[in-house]
Amino acid sequence: MEEGVAILARTPAALDALLRGLPDGWIAAHEGGDTWSPFDVIGHLIHGERADWMPRVRILLEHGEERAFNQFDRFAQFAESEGRTLPSLLDEFAALRQQSLLELAAMRLTDADLDRRGRHPELGVVTLRHLLATWVAHDLDHIVQISRAMARQYSDDVGPWRAYLRIIRETPS
Amino acid sequence: MEEGVAILARTPAALDALLRGLPDGWIAAHEGGDTWSPFDVIGHLIHGERADWMPRVRILLEHGEERAFNQFDRFAQFAESEGRTLPSLLDEFAALRQQSLLELAAMRLTDADLDRRGRHPELGVVTLRHLLATWVAHDLDHIVQISRAMARQYSDDVGPWRAYLRIIRETPS
Repeated sequence: MEEGVAILARTPAALDALLRGLPDGWIAAHEGGDTWSPFDVIGHLIHGERADWMPRVRILLEHGEERAFNQFDRFAQFAESEGRTLPSLLDEFAALRQQSLLELAAMRLTDADLDRRGRHPELGVVTLRHLLATWVAHDLDHIVQISRAMARQYSDDVGPWRAYLRIIRETPS
Repeated sequence: MEEGVAILARTPAALDALLRGLPDGWIAAHEGGDTWSPFDVIGHLIHGERADWMPRVRILLEHGEERAFNQFDRFAQFAESEGRTLPSLLDEFAALRQQSLLELAAMRLTDADLDRRGRHPELGVVTLRHLLATWVAHDLDHIVQISRAMARQYSDDVGPWRAYLRIIRETPS
């Protein structure tokens, strides 16, 4: 539990250090098609704080398996982030995450609580432990996505080194 | 050129924000077999600053295609990082990177310089542009590697969400 929170607490600062002040080309960089840019991902993380992680923790603790979690809108950020700047999104993400973790700490969850069960609308029965571990892995997954999207802007520029760079060599799935 | 430097300048702070102070389990986390942990990767990035990136820039500018770059030792960090702590490695990486970028700026490279050619010991002829782009992509590749190694510690803990987490679903290659 503490191990996971250690990551959750660091994600906003890590993304801030990586992204704030970068030229716009990096912020809008994506992997083609409808893949996401760093700008899109930060909006998605904000929506997760508002609508997904702590709301699901509360539903699970209050209603157990009786009430399924709300569906998560994976595309909410496209409307919500419109007209925003990256720095303002980074600030908002950091503030919301801090608030989420304060609320989580105040719950004083025990090991037994982590085995409590809830219901995902598609995946079925899950435990609080699954939900919290997924929150952590989801953060890291999006750090990967942002770094990969930026690196792939240089797929041609790296020339022969392409053969050595796993991040560029592997085509998007 | 400036775009690339913007990433290179941010990598140490981003990794610092992500890793400093994390419990030891995260720092030593790897993906099985002889894959690397965050601790290993920071040592590798340090070795790159000392032995790879700017030394290769200098060889290319001084000797062109006449002299191949030195081989890069991908395993140097296992001896060099022994007995070190992660905070001291993070400090060293930040200091070395800052020094590299000061040196690079002092070269006042032009667009024409970026087309100058050198020789990689295995890949053959490469340009300065290729070398600098690879430096950037290599940073991002290792941010991906660190985030992926950490996320995969939760491969089981996420339970049914495994199906939704690309970072965990995809097995290491």
